Amino acid sequence: MQRWKFTVEYDGTGYVGWQRQDGLPSVQQVLEEAIEAYTGSPCTLRAAGRTDAGVHASAQVVHVDLPRADSPFTTMSAINHFLKPEAVAVVDAEAVPDSFDARFTAIGRGYTYRILNRRAQPALDRNRLWHVPWPLDLEAMTAAAARLLGHHDFSSFRSSDCQAKSPMRTLDELTIRRAGDEVLIRTRAQAFLHNQVRIMVGTLAMVGRGRWTPDDVTRALQARKRAAAGQTAPPQGLCLDLVAYPPPELWAEMASRRRARPVDAEATGNDPDEVDGD
Amino acid sequence: MQRWKFTVEYDGTGYVGWQRQDGLPSVQQVLEEAIEAYTGSPCTLRAAGRTDAGVHASAQVVHVDLPRADSPFTTMSAINHFLKPEAVAVVDAEAVPDSFDARFTAIGRGYTYRILNRRAQPALDRNRLWHVPWPLDLEAMTAAAARLLGHHDFSSFRSSDCQAKSPMRTLDELTIRRAGDEVLIRTRAQAFLHNQVRIMVGTLAMVGRGRWTPDDVTRALQARKRAAAGQTAPPQGLCLDLVAYPPPELWAEMASRRRARPVDAEATGNDPDEVDGD
Repeated sequence: MQRWKFTVEYDGTGYVGWQRQDGLPSVQQVLEEAIEAYTGSPCTLRAAGRTDAGVHASAQVVHVDLPRADSPFTTMSAINHFLKPEAVAVVDAEAVPDSFDARFTAIGRGYTYRILNRRAQPALDRNRLWHVPWPLDLEAMTAAAARLLGHHDFSSFRSSDCQAKSPMRTLDELTIRRAGDEVLIRTRAQAFLHNQVRIMVGTLAMVGRGRWTPDDVTRALQARKRAAAGQTAPPQGLCLDLVAYPPPELWAEMASRRRARPVDAEATGNDPDEVDGD
Repeated sequence: MQRWKFTVEYDGTGYVGWQRQDGLPSVQQVLEEAIEAYTGSPCTLRAAGRTDAGVHASAQVVHVDLPRADSPFTTMSAINHFLKPEAVAVVDAEAVPDSFDARFTAIGRGYTYRILNRRAQPALDRNRLWHVPWPLDLEAMTAAAARLLGHHDFSSFRSSDCQAKSPMRTLDELTIRRAGDEVLIRTRAQAFLHNQVRIMVGTLAMVGRGRWTPDDVTRALQARKRAAAGQTAPPQGLCLDLVAYPPPELWAEMASRRRARPVDAEATGNDPDEVDGD
């Protein structure tokens, strides 16, 4: 068997999300079936991040063990052939050692959230944007974002369905910029809680509208309960566009360390059962 | 009656193009019906550029005379209300004097063409991209584009359906740049022939692939027949994103000059019956 790392792009619009659900179209199912059509054997993919229904990815990373070891070019082309006409494509393929694990060796995930900030509803890119028709104060949003950076208990910023054992996460980046009619929110962390990005975006939008201050965001964070933060922004504005890995010589140690569930999982947010979940 | 200038965004995917066609969904029909629902009276729109089926616009410009003179905000909001759920939106509204004519006073049109230049087919933005899987040589494409700049007989670069009286056009810009996996082709002229942008893009793609040289493009231009140029690139990569007008004090003179059909129309490409047609 050969382990493969695939970088995958998908439009989440027509799917129930990354993860398989009985009888419903998921990205995982579509991709596994295309790989099975190519190899002739069943397979199970592991992804770096579980994305919800309607959330997109330009660079999701998955791994899988396959009984074929064709060239990366042939492997990718064959799978892409069987993926048509789905809105899923393998954009990069790499043969990797068994020490690589798309989930356990990942050291960073990056998302971009697109807000269309103008009066008129979107006509172009309707499945890629959240329409916010009132003016947004980016200076206030940037000040509020600073309150969320760093290591915190993000209980207020996790879905009530979130299955992560620890609500502790370290937020490395949360930046906001305007690009034409759009407001782009960029964020990065080792891992996120379920819906964390979308709740942060929904909360920042309240600050941008002037209904909340940066101090209200600090209070929401400190409250440690979901009801204290803002609404969950809709899924279609969100795109997973980065999964970062350390150099290959560190993979084996990282994967085994994560699988062993460190006793300080609660404190570090490195709990092995925690899957990036936005 | 009050004349209105509307800037309109649309996703061309589900429409037969800008222009009305009996029994088929056009952008013009959808927009006229929304305006009629707002005013209660029939109306006819005139657009700066006719776009084909599948071609998009982020900034098409139209004008229309309406029996209501509400504020621009109210007018735009009301029309956008009646446009839902169509993929058409009014993004700007301005009350203008009767001397404004979306078509006759326009002095420039700008289009951007998006090529996805990678092996894997698109999963995101599938209705906005032409997929070209082989490597493109941008240096050669840029050299070839220079052969098309300026005032030429573009007979080789017009659809056989093109109804413009003169094939003379002045190409002001044709630039090519890479942005990630995409190759973006930007072009601008006072007006274009039918399919001119898409035939230029299809021809540049042949140069980018190494099948044609810049000299072949010059020969195609000199041949003055459609068969001499490259294929018509598919519509979904194309977007009308600019229509330029002179200052208001020049509108009246421009519109009357164009309507009068100058005797030098053939020579100047200023024939009043020529509608921008890509």
